[in-house]
Amino acid sequence: MAREVFIDDSGDERLTDFRDLTTADRRPDRPGGRGLVIAEGTVVVRRLLESPYPVRALLGVERRIRELAGDLAGTAAPAYVASAETMAEVVGFHLNRGVLAVADRVPRPPASGIAAGARALAVLEGVGDHENLGALFRNAAALGVDGVLLGSGCSDPLYRRSVRVSMGHVLRVPFGTLDPWPCGLEQLRAQGFRIAALTPRAEAIELRALRDRRPERVALLLGSEGYGLSEAALAAADLAVRIPMATGVDSLNVATSAAVAFYEMGVP
Amino acid sequence: MAREVFIDDSGDERLTDFRDLTTADRRPDRPGGRGLVIAEGTVVVRRLLESPYPVRALLGVERRIRELAGDLAGTAAPAYVASAETMAEVVGFHLNRGVLAVADRVPRPPASGIAAGARALAVLEGVGDHENLGALFRNAAALGVDGVLLGSGCSDPLYRRSVRVSMGHVLRVPFGTLDPWPCGLEQLRAQGFRIAALTPRAEAIELRALRDRRPERVALLLGSEGYGLSEAALAAADLAVRIPMATGVDSLNVATSAAVAFYEMGVP
Repeated sequence: MAREVFIDDSGDERLTDFRDLTTADRRPDRPGGRGLVIAEGTVVVRRLLESPYPVRALLGVERRIRELAGDLAGTAAPAYVASAETMAEVVGFHLNRGVLAVADRVPRPPASGIAAGARALAVLEGVGDHENLGALFRNAAALGVDGVLLGSGCSDPLYRRSVRVSMGHVLRVPFGTLDPWPCGLEQLRAQGFRIAALTPRAEAIELRALRDRRPERVALLLGSEGYGLSEAALAAADLAVRIPMATGVDSLNVATSAAVAFYEMGVP
Repeated sequence: MAREVFIDDSGDERLTDFRDLTTADRRPDRPGGRGLVIAEGTVVVRRLLESPYPVRALLGVERRIRELAGDLAGTAAPAYVASAETMAEVVGFHLNRGVLAVADRVPRPPASGIAAGARALAVLEGVGDHENLGALFRNAAALGVDGVLLGSGCSDPLYRRSVRVSMGHVLRVPFGTLDPWPCGLEQLRAQGFRIAALTPRAEAIELRALRDRRPERVALLLGSEGYGLSEAALAAADLAVRIPMATGVDSLNVATSAAVAFYEMGVP
C-alpha cells in the first residue's frame, strides 16, 4: 500500500520529481532533464500503475488520492497529498486534473520481440507531433493494434503531452524502435508480415480492397501529416493503400487516417 | 482586387476587427464580442475567400499577403500589410501563421435545406469541445459528408479554434441547427433518411453490418465524448451501430469515431 504523506511546503525536497514540470519535461533526455514518465489525472495515473514502468511517487490533492486508493494497494511508492495551491507552486502551473504520478523509464523491447506475438502493427515514419503521436496510440489501443514501431523522425511517445493525449495508452501498447530505417522493415517481412503503406497517392489501391483478403499479419506503414512517407519507405512496402477522399480536401490527420485503417484491418 | 494598405501603427482604427482577438473571439455572441468569422493562415484564409461568408478585411505580413495574391483577385476587401510585431500588438499574441481574415456571419440555412440534396449527414448532440467539433468537420469534408446538423448542447462551429482545427472546412461543409431536439429528427426521417446512432453500447449492431446494406440516405447521430447520446436521442434513431473496440479502452475521440463511421458509410 502506498504511504500517504501530507506536505504543505512546496519547497519540500521529496517533491523534486514533480518540480518545474514543463521545463524538465521538455528536455527529458538533455542535461537538466530527468527522463521520467509523467502521468496526469486519475485515468492516466491508473494506467501508469498497471504498466511496467516503476512508479516513483504520486502527488495529488486529497480527493484524487482517495479516488485512487484501490489502485494504490499494490505499490510501495509514496503518495504525497498537497493542496492545489502547493501543487501549482511545485509543478509551475495550475493542474486541472489534481493528481500526477512519476515513473522511471524501462528499456524498450526490441522490434522483433514486439512483432513476435503480433497480428497487427503500426509502423511510423516522421510522426513528430506529440499530440498526433498520442492520439495514434489511443486509436491503436482501441482498435486492437498489438504494437507500434518507430522508424526515423518520430517523437518520444513518453513525452508528457503524448501520454496525456493518448489517455495513457502509450503506457499499455508496446512500442520500440525499428532500426535501421527503412531496411529494418525487411525483418518484419521475414517474420511473416505484409507491409501496407497508407498514402493519399492515386496509384495506391483502395483500403477497402483489403477487406476480404486481409493478410494474416499486417504492418501498417504511416507517414507524417505534412510530407507523407518517404520514397524509400514506400519502396520498402509490399503494397500501398489509400482512403478514398473527397476532392479538394488536403488529407485526414495521421492519427485519424490510422484509425480508419486499423478499423478496416478488423482486429477487434 | 483587394486593396493593399500598409499599416505601421498598431493603434490604427482600421484594424478594429482584429484587435484583442482572444477576448473578442471567446465572446462572439456576448455584449462586447463582435461575432465575426476569423480565419488564420493561408490555407484557411483561402477557404474563407471561397466561402459564402463576406470577407471584411485581411491582415498579414507582406510575404503571406503576396502568397494570397491570386486568391484576392475577386475580393474588394482591404488587405492590411503590417510587420509581425505590429500584428502581435493588435491581436494580442504572436501569430505564427502570419495572416488573418475576418468575415461577417451569414444566416444558417434551415436543416431541411441542408438535408434536401444530401446523401450523408452528421447530426451532433452535446459536442461542446471546440477542437473535437473542428476535427469532426475536417473529417466530414474529407470523407464526403454533405452537411452537419447541430442538436442540443453543441458549440459554435465558427469559433476561431474550431475554424482552425477544421482546416477551414467548417467554412465549406454546410451546417445548421436541428430544432426542436430530438424531435426534429422526425423531419429527417420524413425526408427519407435512416437515422443511425453511433454508440459504444453492447446491444448496438456492428458498424460493419451496414456495409452491404447501406441506406440510400443516412444520418449518423453522434454524441459527446463524455456522456454519449441521451436516451431520448437514442430512442429517436432507427438503429444503433457501434465500432468494435478492444476491451479496457474507454472509447475513441468523437471526431475519430465519426471518421470511422463516415468511412464505412462509403460516400466518396
